[in-house]
Amino acid sequence: MLRVVLCNCSPNESKELARTLIEERLAACVNILPSITSCYVWQNELCEEEEHTLLIKTTDKRYHAMKERLEELHSYDVPEIIALNTDDVLDSYARWAHEQTS
Amino acid sequence: MLRVVLCNCSPNESKELARTLIEERLAACVNILPSITSCYVWQNELCEEEEHTLLIKTTDKRYHAMKERLEELHSYDVPEIIALNTDDVLDSYARWAHEQTS
Amino acid sequence: MLRVVLCNCSPNESKELARTLIEERLAACVNILPSITSCYVWQNELCEEEEHTLLIKTTDKRYHAMKERLEELHSYDVPEIIALNTDDVLDSYARWAHEQTS
Repeated sequence: MLRVVLCNCSPNESKELARTLIEERLAACVNILPSITSCYVWQNELCEEEEHTLLIKTTDKRYHAMKERLEELHSYDVPEIIALNTDDVLDSYARWAHEQTS
Repeated sequence: MLRVVLCNCSPNESKELARTLIEERLAACVNILPSITSCYVWQNELCEEEEHTLLIKTTDKRYHAMKERLEELHSYDVPEIIALNTDDVLDSYARWAHEQTS
Repeated sequence: MLRVVLCNCSPNESKELARTLIEERLAACVNILPSITSCYVWQNELCEEEEHTLLIKTTDKRYHAMKERLEELHSYDVPEIIALNTDDVLDSYARWAHEQTS
């Protein structure tokens, strides 16, 4: 099955992260959602930072290698990497995604 | 239960796809996320295309009819149609979504 | 485990909702996705409204308290609050999220 993985990053690294995951066949497709405002507390201060959200489509088989590489590439010490559970995927798209990551 | 379905499309077809799914009672709500950059390889070339991401909210009961119609309407040969697993939904929203799709 | 919760709201309340959930330690992080077009039928009319989508990251333990508070704060009578099933989370991020919400 496929996995949809959420990851937030700074705007200036989103394209580089996406390209590397695709070129290293760790993901079939990465969507970059721009102009996101992220609210969180960091070192006791409420932060509202501009980020990009990555929607990463990969396979069960490549997920752990992708996760490791993404953590390595990412500029944050503690990046958000969350895999969402998929229920059903259009067959032709699933086949394409497996081809792109094998 | 409800399903949240991800689908990417070209910017000029997002509204038409969303309206048709709503008017044909195949989805209760469709959010269109604009200005998405999608990275993927197509015919051995790294592509970075502008797309819109559709977040489609439908029910288990209507999902397969929605998926079939979306594939039919979509301009791509191999559209991304991925159903995410939902864990919990606000009761009043779930009732509303079922009413909109029955 | 963590939960990713989807909620749409009007543009003028997104920051207030996000800040309150974070300050009351009901969520570790809230991403605000701007300029969303939402299509749905309300009182038999097809609506296409500008909304913001909130991507709320919280824990299983805090989810129900967060859901209750969000419904209370939200300006809609029937807000969309949908919890997505997560499959895997980077350990360091999961630890951070639990610390932020305990």
